[in-house]
Formats: sequence, structure tokens, C-alpha cells
Amino acid sequence: MSGKTRRIVLKSLPKGLPTPDNFEIVEADIPVLRDGEFLVRNAYIGLAPSSRIRMSELGSGKSYAEPTPIGGVIYGQTLGTVVETRHPGYAVGDTVVLTAGGWQEVTISDGSLTTRVDLSVAPPTHWLGALGVSGLSAYVGLIDVGHIQPTDCVAVSAASGAVGAMVGQIAKAMGCRVVGIAGGAEKCAYIKDELGFDEAVDYRAADFESALANACAGEIDLFFDNVGGAVRTAMLGQMNTFGRIVVCGMIAEYNSLSSATGPSWLPILSKRLTVRGFLMRDHMHMYDAFMRDVSNWMHAGAIKPREDIVDGLESTPEAFIGMLRGKNFGKTIVRL
Amino acid sequence: MSGKTRRIVLKSLPKGLPTPDNFEIVEADIPVLRDGEFLVRNAYIGLAPSSRIRMSELGSGKSYAEPTPIGGVIYGQTLGTVVETRHPGYAVGDTVVLTAGGWQEVTISDGSLTTRVDLSVAPPTHWLGALGVSGLSAYVGLIDVGHIQPTDCVAVSAASGAVGAMVGQIAKAMGCRVVGIAGGAEKCAYIKDELGFDEAVDYRAADFESALANACAGEIDLFFDNVGGAVRTAMLGQMNTFGRIVVCGMIAEYNSLSSATGPSWLPILSKRLTVRGFLMRDHMHMYDAFMRDVSNWMHAGAIKPREDIVDGLESTPEAFIGMLRGKNFGKTIVRL
Repeated sequence: MSGKTRRIVLKSLPKGLPTPDNFEIVEADIPVLRDGEFLVRNAYIGLAPSSRIRMSELGSGKSYAEPTPIGGVIYGQTLGTVVETRHPGYAVGDTVVLTAGGWQEVTISDGSLTTRVDLSVAPPTHWLGALGVSGLSAYVGLIDVGHIQPTDCVAVSAASGAVGAMVGQIAKAMGCRVVGIAGGAEKCAYIKDELGFDEAVDYRAADFESALANACAGEIDLFFDNVGGAVRTAMLGQMNTFGRIVVCGMIAEYNSLSSATGPSWLPILSKRLTVRGFLMRDHMHMYDAFMRDVSNWMHAGAIKPREDIVDGLESTPEAFIGMLRGKNFGKTIVRL
Repeated sequence: MSGKTRRIVLKSLPKGLPTPDNFEIVEADIPVLRDGEFLVRNAYIGLAPSSRIRMSELGSGKSYAEPTPIGGVIYGQTLGTVVETRHPGYAVGDTVVLTAGGWQEVTISDGSLTTRVDLSVAPPTHWLGALGVSGLSAYVGLIDVGHIQPTDCVAVSAASGAVGAMVGQIAKAMGCRVVGIAGGAEKCAYIKDELGFDEAVDYRAADFESALANACAGEIDLFFDNVGGAVRTAMLGQMNTFGRIVVCGMIAEYNSLSSATGPSWLPILSKRLTVRGFLMRDHMHMYDAFMRDVSNWMHAGAIKPREDIVDGLESTPEAFIGMLRGKNFGKTIVRL
């Protein structure tokens, strides 16, 4: 296949919250396939806060995310259709999710970091959210990292976000009491009324600390932290003895990593807490169990996927910035 | 038994590092025994940094250390002899260690938090150090909390202190490579030359960061943290992927708990670290294994107990303050 294609590249390193001029849409030739490769026309891009970490020199290193170079395509997950193939395992018409598809209209893949999806199980956007990296992060974080028990009282920050909404719904499906922390009355109503969380606490409210104490009563066994920052510090005061904290993300700090400090470790010592960071990719042995359980919960109505969908490649930077500012409900997805 | 006895009580709450006038020696009547109690004449007091936490309103709460009230006897471990008994399980002449014996010449016990000791196994001072709370904290922290493996590269802070010296020697006895962090050339020479640590890094040296990087090479699998503060922050940069941090103490921060912050959690996320706080008392099921293993290592010469002994009850506050300032080698003990 020949012709032109569009992609979004990093124009400059963001200082603090990214702005639209950190990004640039460029046109490029569609590359020629080599043996063992196939070409995917992306239909959807799934946005995730972790792309922000790659737009800096911090957070990089052998063990974590490769930084995106200036001029490089922005990292992101895509769903699309194989339109040309020189790979024996993939045929034209296959629907795939590319973990590193990038913010672009077409992607060349050699089959690595590629998942074949079955659209009879769920519509395409679910494969980037509830059944994609967001759901998988929630599932492995709760089960493989946090060792969730049905008797746990669970708290989650960014509770209306793509991962947080899944965390709370999975924990509810497993029988736990769930406290969600979110920003603003609308999000709090959503997680409590629509998703069935037991408590919702608005971290932007003036009475946040006392509302959190009322909701948690110092008895949180498992805190799933997507946010870091001041919410995490407040949560340390609400942990139960021997509680576990699962560190999935630090969205409150991604824009100021170089200056970030953290809370005192005194509660870790005095309450004998366990704090564990994780990356989904280390837990891929859970994938089949994840697909089985989350599909079942979705079909039973215990998990209600929600996506914030915007249209057009050119909308991607603004949607991404909005997500970092907490404007989204559920998974933010760009439809191409 | 009647008569007078002396004890050291808290006169005022320390602000920062305690000073001698925070303490007061008072004289009291020897209390009358009730049924089920026995009276111990203390021969030794073992000093520990955790007593400092109790001299504040921070660090208290249902799950941790009860604060020492003004006028209350300072918390501490003692070794002594039963001199009077109305308890069927303890006879006059028994030697016991009292976990909460306190800074006093005699203590009434009902047998709780009491360990009978056999002086044919080890001399009395060892029962407050290598075979006491310090050794037990090191042992359970490494094994039950840190899940030490013979292939681990282990680092320990306050490495010449009572707990730290035991941590390094136990880890060496188990086959690990061990890096110790201590303050000053004399302590570094002690842990490397006398105790056999592989590397010693002086945190007071101007080249601390680069010396630490040379000794650790970013490959520390298990960090046993007695100190907190700046040493902990530096160690986060030296952890291996999937490394474990055992939080035993925070001596660098006990004097300024209310203002303390901690390091950024980014390395916890990016390196997928596990951080666990612990208190020895939650791991008493390890006691028999601890006694067996540490006795064997001592008799084989793999563990060399060391105590800093001072004489006289009146010397206790100064010895305690010196220990908090890092003046001690090994376990600080007051001989009465």
C-alpha cells in the first residue's frame, strides 16, 4: 500500500501540563512492508496518562518507559484492522489492538504487543477500556498485586477514570466495600449512583478531609492509587493496620516529576503497610483470567464500561490534555 | 520487699533531639506484689531509638506505640533477676528479659512480655542485643518481611547500630552480598573489616552519592531501612527492579516527625518496588527459629555481638541521646 498518512509527533517537551503546541500533526509516506510485518489502519486511539511520563527525561531508564524523542510518534494504544500483510499469522480484515500503536492513522506491526480481538464479544471501544489496558491494570493490580479479599474495604483514587472505575466495579463484584475519590459532584454521583460504589468523596470539596474520614473510618485495607499527591497523603491516614497500597499511577505528579516529594513514611511503619508499585506488562499471565472474569461481569451487568469518545486525529492532543486535567468520565478514546 | 527504688521518668516532651532536662530521676516506694505478679531487680537496660517515638504525640494510636505520659517511666527493655514472686511460673533467682521493663531499678511483671533467658547460652548483655529485640528485629525483618534470598544484594542503613549490624551479619551468613551505610570512617571500617560486610559507604562523606552508586550499582534487591531521611532517598535510586524495602525505623526523622515528608514515589512505580513497614511484635512466631539460627551463627563466629555499655541509671539519658546522635557501635546498654 502506498500513499500518505498522518501522525502526531512530539514537537517539544511539555513543561508542566502539556499544551497543544507540544504536539504536531505531520504527514508521512506509508512505509513499505517487510517480511513478517503487517499494516494496520487504526480506527480508535485509547488515551492514557502514562503517555505523559514518556514526554520527559524522568521516568525513563532500563526498567520503565522509553522516552518519546522530539519528532517521535506519541505513544498510545490503538485498535484497527489489518489492511495489508506479509505476516503468516495475520490476515487482511483481522481486528487487532496494538499496545504501542501510537497516535497515527496507520501502524506497521510485527505481531509483538499485539492482541487479536473478537468484536462479537464486545464492541471495539471496550477493547481499549474495560477489556483493554485500563481494565487489565485494574484487574492485575487488585488481584495479583493487592491480593484483594472479599472482606476488604477498598479505596480508589481517580475513581471515575478509565482504571479507577474498573477498580471499583471489580472490587464491588468481588464483594468488597468500596470508597471512590473523584473530583467534583458530577463524578461522585456517577461512581455512586451509576457504578454502585458505597461511598464517593470529592477531593475538591472544602470538607474533603473530614468527608474522607467519615467514608473510610481509618479502615481501608486496600488502596488503589492512581493519583499520588495530596489525595495519597490523606489516604495514608485512613489505612487499616496491615493495609496494602497498590501504586498504579501518579497523575497528580506527572507534570512536575522533578520537584515531587512524597508523604512521610511514618504511617508505613506504624501501621505496617505494604506499598507496591506495578506495571501491567509484568502480569500478562493473568490475561486469560482477566478476559474470562471481566467479560462475565460485563454480561452480568456488574461492570458498565464507559468511554468518552472524540472524533478525528486532530482532536487527540486536546482530549489528552483534558484527560490529564480530569475532564473525562471513563476511558478517553479518539475515533479516527 | 519494701524500701525505695529509683526510676527515670519523662519530665517534658523533647522538641527535636532530647536533652537531659527532658528526663528526671525520681525515687519511689517499691510496690507491694499482688497475686500473679513477681518483682524483678533489673541488672541491665537496653536502649532503642523507638523509645523516642513514645516521647511525642505523633506515632501513637491504637495500632502502634502508646505514648509515654509526662511523669511516666521511660519505655525500654531490661534484663534482671526475680527477687520476689507471687507468680506460680516464676521463682526467685530466675533471669528474665522484660520487653517493657522501663528505665528503672526494679519492675513488677505479671509474666506478659517476659522472656526467660538461659545465661549458659550467652552472657546477659547479648540477651538485650543479638539475642534480644535488636537481633530479632533484624531476623524477622529480613526473613518474614523482606523474604531474603541467598542471591540477593542487600543494603542496610545505620549499619553499625544494634539492628543494622545484625542485619548485615545475618545476610552475610545467608550468602548475600551486603552493602552497609554508616556515619564516619571508623564505623565503616568496623562493618567492613570486623563484621565482613562487602562494602561500607559513609553517608557523611562528600562523595556519598557516587560512593553509594559504586557500591550498589543500582542492583539492591533488599534494602533494610533503619534511618529514613536522605539516605533512604538516595537508596531509592540504587534499587533493582522488583526490589523490596523493609522499613524498620526512621531514626533520622524521629526528632522532627511533624514536619517530615518523604521521597517521591516514582521509583516505587517505575521499578515496581515493594515497601513494607513492620514491628517485631507481629512476628513472634519466628522466635524459636531466630534463637536457633542466631545462636548457631554466634557459636560459629559468623555473628559477633557488640555492645556499648555504660554504668549507672543516671547515665541512661546521656547514653540514649548519644545513641540517637549515632555515637554507638552495636547495642547501647546501661549496667545498673
